[in-house]
Amino acid sequence: MKLIKAKLIDVQPGYCEIHVPYDPNLTQQHGFFHAGIISTVADNTAGYASFSLMEENSSILSVEFKLNLISPGDGEMLIGKSNVLKNGRTLTICRSEVFIVKNGKEKLCAAAQSTLIELRDRLDGSES
Amino acid sequence: MKLIKAKLIDVQPGYCEIHVPYDPNLTQQHGFFHAGIISTVADNTAGYASFSLMEENSSILSVEFKLNLISPGDGEMLIGKSNVLKNGRTLTICRSEVFIVKNGKEKLCAAAQSTLIELRDRLDGSES
Amino acid sequence: MKLIKAKLIDVQPGYCEIHVPYDPNLTQQHGFFHAGIISTVADNTAGYASFSLMEENSSILSVEFKLNLISPGDGEMLIGKSNVLKNGRTLTICRSEVFIVKNGKEKLCAAAQSTLIELRDRLDGSES
Amino acid sequence: MKLIKAKLIDVQPGYCEIHVPYDPNLTQQHGFFHAGIISTVADNTAGYASFSLMEENSSILSVEFKLNLISPGDGEMLIGKSNVLKNGRTLTICRSEVFIVKNGKEKLCAAAQSTLIELRDRLDGSES
Repeated sequence: MKLIKAKLIDVQPGYCEIHVPYDPNLTQQHGFFHAGIISTVADNTAGYASFSLMEENSSILSVEFKLNLISPGDGEMLIGKSNVLKNGRTLTICRSEVFIVKNGKEKLCAAAQSTLIELRDRLDGSES
Repeated sequence: MKLIKAKLIDVQPGYCEIHVPYDPNLTQQHGFFHAGIISTVADNTAGYASFSLMEENSSILSVEFKLNLISPGDGEMLIGKSNVLKNGRTLTICRSEVFIVKNGKEKLCAAAQSTLIELRDRLDGSES
Repeated sequence: MKLIKAKLIDVQPGYCEIHVPYDPNLTQQHGFFHAGIISTVADNTAGYASFSLMEENSSILSVEFKLNLISPGDGEMLIGKSNVLKNGRTLTICRSEVFIVKNGKEKLCAAAQSTLIELRDRLDGSES
Repeated sequence: MKLIKAKLIDVQPGYCEIHVPYDPNLTQQHGFFHAGIISTVADNTAGYASFSLMEENSSILSVEFKLNLISPGDGEMLIGKSNVLKNGRTLTICRSEVFIVKNGKEKLCAAAQSTLIELRDRLDGSES
């Protein structure tokens, strides 16, 4: 989150929104946000949305995600939004969208679907 | 590639290998490589592996990818390897693995499957 | 569609809904709808939703899809719904949900995200 | 498995192979194997490959899978092969390929990457 200068704008039960302002360090050869940044935003919003529904002392880990890159990251800010589709006993499923804002107008930039796992009373970030 | 200090180690027709040495700027709260870096490595190796089979004047764009995070990125280097499964007229399908090296030993860290699109005679990086 | 006795209930520009009534031939060992049927419903609804936005003489082909199986297919009917997220020049991205109806109540059974390709003036169903 | 007349050819620890002979009931409008059959083969081979490494009294459930449809299912038999990439404490990750055999020659038809969950001492097929 620090490397990409992301700001956590909103967290509610089952929902999260993250903003990433334009920074020339985060862009590829055309001056657009790099796909790696876009996927990091999608993954992080899913993580916080899932974490918002966890029990105390639990941590959350991304198992996998699938991301479609839909429009180039050409603009002044990325906005990530994620909603929990299902909060199961062990696994949580989220859908995330990343929008690119250009001249104040939002456009869908990427869409993801993710699976996360709740690790109860563990701090080491490992499922294996 | 520059932001994550990735090194392009090997590119052959339909194959690519990338190395990313440990850097404290690329890690999350436990000192492990961040999932966003791991997915960037997977996506970039797929991009170069696909690009190695393209026609002159073509550019390549990731359509989508699916990544399983398999082991924590706990180690001194990430190694990304990608192979082209199918090089179609318009679309290319790749499988990538990201390994984490700890004390000189490689362990599977993530596995991805990606779809890329060849854009002929275009330089703007957009399918839409 | 015939093998699984699916009924096309609604097609609008960028949207499709399909129903599959319970049939003992479509179930696995517990009497639930088989995962293969659930994924077929998700894939077919995405196909029709995309096709609804195509040009005349085009055909549509699934490039790839990712499906999360969320609840068992335990009920009297499957309902598939799909929405087009992006209708690009070549590729279309859809999100689909499959609901299971039990005692008249809908429950989310599966969620998918798909990429489809428009084949203009071709009838052979091949991208390669 | 019965509906699609699949034959379990080989199961070894972490590996499975399934064959599905041509049947006009399993094909779409061009006489090719339907995408739903192809994805069912990929999902089932992953299930058996994972199950081969499970503890006694465990059952296995597909959490999600991502499938690329690579060539049309034009031929006399489908062959599914799946390998376990990682057999974790709770989750198993598999990669599967589905080949189409035409005039005795195998061609890659689809490739999948799947996540499965081991349910210990439970028989109801539900993670939720």
